[in-house]
Amino acid sequence: MKCGVLFSGGKDSGLASLMLSRYYEVELNTFVFDEGQVKDTIREAAEFIGLPHQVRILGKEILNRATEMVLSDGFPNNAINMVHCEALERLAGLYPVIADGTRYGDRVPFLTHDNVQRLSSRYGISYIRPLLGFPKTEVLRLANREVVITYGETGDMDNGDYEGEIRNAIRMRGFDPSRFFPSMHQQSLVTGKAGTSGVST
Amino acid sequence: MKCGVLFSGGKDSGLASLMLSRYYEVELNTFVFDEGQVKDTIREAAEFIGLPHQVRILGKEILNRATEMVLSDGFPNNAINMVHCEALERLAGLYPVIADGTRYGDRVPFLTHDNVQRLSSRYGISYIRPLLGFPKTEVLRLANREVVITYGETGDMDNGDYEGEIRNAIRMRGFDPSRFFPSMHQQSLVTGKAGTSGVST
Repeated sequence: MKCGVLFSGGKDSGLASLMLSRYYEVELNTFVFDEGQVKDTIREAAEFIGLPHQVRILGKEILNRATEMVLSDGFPNNAINMVHCEALERLAGLYPVIADGTRYGDRVPFLTHDNVQRLSSRYGISYIRPLLGFPKTEVLRLANREVVITYGETGDMDNGDYEGEIRNAIRMRGFDPSRFFPSMHQQSLVTGKAGTSGVST
Repeated sequence: MKCGVLFSGGKDSGLASLMLSRYYEVELNTFVFDEGQVKDTIREAAEFIGLPHQVRILGKEILNRATEMVLSDGFPNNAINMVHCEALERLAGLYPVIADGTRYGDRVPFLTHDNVQRLSSRYGISYIRPLLGFPKTEVLRLANREVVITYGETGDMDNGDYEGEIRNAIRMRGFDPSRFFPSMHQQSLVTGKAGTSGVST
């Protein structure tokens, strides 16, 4: 059975994909707003994970909607959740089983119980969050066994979590994105297979 | 790393154990109130799962406390949760990582977020619920690939979910347990390895 996993290039979605690949025919799916924005680092991360990788385009309309939400809210949470939901809905139209790397305790992105129910019943799909019941310590322990992880701040780090493109769009409108996005938001990127030296970025 | 999983003999705790056995040195742990109450069906279920199995004794005091809770509440939920918490605390004293087969949407047994935090910080352990993010359809799909499952009603089914012994204790006190326990509470028992004909009970 095919399973489409939302893949940012980071440790959580990478580990979730590897866990599910034991049971499902997993495809990694990275969503970007603009086709030109697909990072080589994410393609490389997918290669280290060793599963087929699809890049999918959310489009300018969703980017505009997200940018306006951030500007009017003054913080990015609702916008990031909206984009995450949109990406999951697109996957739900393509696969019988969809998944992501969200964990219990994640604030953003994270679907409410109602949104989870709506997604499953509207599209008749299963939505799996394999890491939901794993505490952070165990996610780190297991991820480190499978892959090499590099950490950095959003903005310095070329992963695929929507934030980079929204920051650029805010900058294009003449605002300073650091006013809207929390600093010290650590991101991770898969940069090697465990047991190798990895590729540092 | 050793991981002690609460094992009732049913499909959920069986699947959770198999999932974790890829990453941890898993031991199945079945808790009973009275040593004489360990069912052969559960020992057989553990053999079908193929992982080491420990039987642990909760003791008469916990059985009495649970029985009194059911009688005074008029329903078993709080008592079952109390026993489940007690069993997890005992495991937390024995293993660095503990786990069970509870799922999102399970009402009983299910730990509140506060109880999960308390358990982890008090004992300095990780508590994993590998099935938390799996919808029921997918738990069934994956469990059926690994094991043969037999279904039945509590009372007709010799699995290890504490209910049988509490029902007996209520009967011994001169009450009819069916007044306190919901009917049509379907239970499952692992009765074979997938790909075999299984053992029917």
